[in-house]
Amino acid sequence: MIYVSRQEHFNAAHKLYNPHWTKEKNTEVFGPCANENWHGHNYNLIVTVKGSPDPDTGFVIDLKKLSMLIRTEVTDKVDHKNLNMDVDFLRGQFASTENLAMGIWKILEPKISAITKFGRLYSIKLYETPRNFVEYLGE
Amino acid sequence: MIYVSRQEHFNAAHKLYNPHWTKEKNTEVFGPCANENWHGHNYNLIVTVKGSPDPDTGFVIDLKKLSMLIRTEVTDKVDHKNLNMDVDFLRGQFASTENLAMGIWKILEPKISAITKFGRLYSIKLYETPRNFVEYLGE
Amino acid sequence: MIYVSRQEHFNAAHKLYNPHWTKEKNTEVFGPCANENWHGHNYNLIVTVKGSPDPDTGFVIDLKKLSMLIRTEVTDKVDHKNLNMDVDFLRGQFASTENLAMGIWKILEPKISAITKFGRLYSIKLYETPRNFVEYLGE
Amino acid sequence: MIYVSRQEHFNAAHKLYNPHWTKEKNTEVFGPCANENWHGHNYNLIVTVKGSPDPDTGFVIDLKKLSMLIRTEVTDKVDHKNLNMDVDFLRGQFASTENLAMGIWKILEPKISAITKFGRLYSIKLYETPRNFVEYLGE
Amino acid sequence: MIYVSRQEHFNAAHKLYNPHWTKEKNTEVFGPCANENWHGHNYNLIVTVKGSPDPDTGFVIDLKKLSMLIRTEVTDKVDHKNLNMDVDFLRGQFASTENLAMGIWKILEPKISAITKFGRLYSIKLYETPRNFVEYLGE
Amino acid sequence: MIYVSRQEHFNAAHKLYNPHWTKEKNTEVFGPCANENWHGHNYNLIVTVKGSPDPDTGFVIDLKKLSMLIRTEVTDKVDHKNLNMDVDFLRGQFASTENLAMGIWKILEPKISAITKFGRLYSIKLYETPRNFVEYLGE
Repeated sequence: MIYVSRQEHFNAAHKLYNPHWTKEKNTEVFGPCANENWHGHNYNLIVTVKGSPDPDTGFVIDLKKLSMLIRTEVTDKVDHKNLNMDVDFLRGQFASTENLAMGIWKILEPKISAITKFGRLYSIKLYETPRNFVEYLGE
Repeated sequence: MIYVSRQEHFNAAHKLYNPHWTKEKNTEVFGPCANENWHGHNYNLIVTVKGSPDPDTGFVIDLKKLSMLIRTEVTDKVDHKNLNMDVDFLRGQFASTENLAMGIWKILEPKISAITKFGRLYSIKLYETPRNFVEYLGE
Repeated sequence: MIYVSRQEHFNAAHKLYNPHWTKEKNTEVFGPCANENWHGHNYNLIVTVKGSPDPDTGFVIDLKKLSMLIRTEVTDKVDHKNLNMDVDFLRGQFASTENLAMGIWKILEPKISAITKFGRLYSIKLYETPRNFVEYLGE
Repeated sequence: MIYVSRQEHFNAAHKLYNPHWTKEKNTEVFGPCANENWHGHNYNLIVTVKGSPDPDTGFVIDLKKLSMLIRTEVTDKVDHKNLNMDVDFLRGQFASTENLAMGIWKILEPKISAITKFGRLYSIKLYETPRNFVEYLGE
Repeated sequence: MIYVSRQEHFNAAHKLYNPHWTKEKNTEVFGPCANENWHGHNYNLIVTVKGSPDPDTGFVIDLKKLSMLIRTEVTDKVDHKNLNMDVDFLRGQFASTENLAMGIWKILEPKISAITKFGRLYSIKLYETPRNFVEYLGE
Repeated sequence: MIYVSRQEHFNAAHKLYNPHWTKEKNTEVFGPCANENWHGHNYNLIVTVKGSPDPDTGFVIDLKKLSMLIRTEVTDKVDHKNLNMDVDFLRGQFASTENLAMGIWKILEPKISAITKFGRLYSIKLYETPRNFVEYLGE
C-alpha cells in the first residue's frame, strides 16, 4: 500500500455567517470573517489516493488523470467563485473549510474508481491559508 | 545603504470590473476575475525601507514598529475586507494588484519618517498569489 | 471526524548538553549543537485538533481561539527565550525538539476542551528547521 | 512514541516507459513523461523514524546520523543520476515515484537499527514536484 | 512604473558538458553535472514586465495572456524535454541556467508587445533549484 | 550581464543589546530581542554574483565553488554559534541582521575573484525569519 497525492489550488470568496443569528451575534462569533461584503482566500487542495501500483505502469493512479478529475469536478466549480452563493455542493451549509473539505470528498470518492482500479480516495487536505488547514479521511 | 524588509499578509475579496463596460465586455476582458459575486486571495505584502543603520541600535528601522505601522495603516483596512466595497483608498479605482500596491505606497511613504530617521520607503511588493505579483518603487 | 490545524511560530535559543557528561563527551555526541554559548532556531509549530463540526458554526474549533490559546500557553513562554534557561516546562529535561513537542502536548491537551466541545488534541508537529521536525500524538 | 523526520533532496533524470509496449502506446499512457530523451526533477525526500527518546540524549535518533545514512545509502546513488539507467535498486522496474519510494524503504529499513536502538523506520515520503508526491509506510 | 510578474514551471533533463573537452576534463570541471546519462530539475521561471497600468483595466499586462504566452513560447518547448537534445533555442550552447534564461529573454522580449501596449519585458528569473538561480535583465 | 545566486543557511543565537544603555532602556528599545539569555534564528543567506558567462563553461561562477566558499568563509563561522560571543567579524558591533549582512559582504567581496574571472559580488540578502530580511549591495 502506498499513498499518492496531487496538489491543486483555487481562489474564492466567502463569509462565515449563520442566517439564524443576528448580525451582532455573527460578528461576535465569527469576527471579521462575518464581514457581509465577503473576504477571500487562495486555497490549496491536496487529494491523496491509497493503493498498490499497477504492474503495467508503476502507478497507483495516473496523476495527470487525477489532476484533470479534480479540475473538472472540483476546482472548476469553486475557482474564482463565491463559496456561499455560487457553489451547488455547499448550498445550505456554512462555507467553512471543514464543510468544503467534506463536500470535496463526497464528490471525488465515487469518481476515483473511474480512473484507477488500483486505489481509492484516502484523504482530502485543504489549506485556507498556510496557517489554517483541515484534513478529512471520509469517516 | 541597506534594504530592510518586512512581510505581512491579509485576506480579501475583490472582482475586476470596469463599470463603463457591459457585463459581456467585462467577462471577455477579465474572464473569471469579473465574477460579480466576487472571489478572493491571501495577499502577501513586503515593505522595503532603504537607509543606513542607526549607530545606537544597528537598525535602519525597527521592524516591530514597521510591522505595527503596516498593520495599523494598511492591513487593518484591507484584511477580511472587500477591496471594491470596503477600502477607502481604492474608491473609484480598479481593485487590481497594481493599484493596491500603489495605494499602499501612498499611505506608507509619508509615515515611515515618523518611525525612523535612518531610512525611507523603497518598495512595495504585493503577491496576489504565489504566481502573480507586482512591485512598485514609487515612480 | 475531521482534523483541523493551526500553525504558529517562535524563535528561541538552546543547546544540547547532558550535564552528567564531560564537555568532550557532549561535543562528541551533540557536535556543534553542544556549543556552550548557544545557538537557535525559528521553530514552526502545528497544532491539530480532531473532531466533528459544531452544527451552529461549521467549526470543529474556532481557529482564532486556538491561535490565542497557543500564544498564551506556549509561544509567549518560548518565543525569544532560551529553552534551557527560561522555560519552566522544560526544566530538568534536554531541550530537544522531541521533549519540546511532548511538553507542548502536556500543556495544550487539557486546555483544548475549554475552547471547544467538538474536538480534542490530536497532534503536535514541531519544525526545528524546514529539514528537521517531529510529531507527537500523545501516546 | 514520537515521529522524527529528516528531509534531504536530490536531482535526477528519468522517463516513464514500458518496454513491452510500442512507442505509441507509451506516449498514449505516459504522455510527455515518455519522452525518450528523458526529463528530470528536483526530488525532496522525507524519512520518518518512530520511537521513544533515548534518556541520555533526548533523541529518538540523531538526525545528523540519519542525514549521513540517507546520503550514503540513498542520495549518493540517485543524485545527478538517471533513475532508469544508473540506479541498481531500480533495475528492471519503472522509475515511478512509487517504486522509488518503496526502493528507498527497502534500503533504509534494515539500516536504521545500526544508528538507533530507540526507533524504527516509519515512513518514506517522496516529492517528485511540490504538487506530486507519494508516501510509503512499509506494508 | 510598476513591475508585474508571473511564475511558471517546467521539468527537464540536462547535462553540463563541453564537447571540446575529454570526459575526464568535463568531470573535473562539472562534477556530477557532467553525468553522460543526464540528470534533471524542476525549474521555476519568473517573467517580469515593467510598465504603467492601462487606464481601462488597471493592468500593466493581463497575467492570463502572459501565462499563455510563456506556455506557448517557452514551457511547451522545454517541459518534459532534454535541454541538450530537444530544445531548438539552446542548439550549440551549454545547457546552463544562464544560457537558458538568456534564451528565454530573446524569445519573449519581442512578443510582449503583442499582448500589451503598456509594458515591456524587464527580467527573466530562473530557479534551477530553490538554492541555485539566475536573473537576466537583457543587457 | 547576468545575476547568479546561491542560497545557504545557518542557525545561530543572538541578542540585541546596547552595552552603553541600562537593562531597562535595552528592553524598552529592543523588546524581547534584548533577552539576556539569548534567542535564535534559522538564517537564510543568498549570495548574488553579477557577470557574463565564461564561454568555456556557460557559467558566470561555478555554484559548487561559490557554495564551498560561503561555507568555508561564512557559515562555518556563524552556524551553531552565538553571534554576539563567537563571531570575530561582528566583534564590537550589534548582532543585527544589517550588520551581519554587511560583515558577510566584507568577507566575500575580495574572495569572489579567486573563484571566477567572469563576475563580482553584487548582493548579500539575509533572512532572519521568512518575514524579516535585509539586502546589502556594497555601498
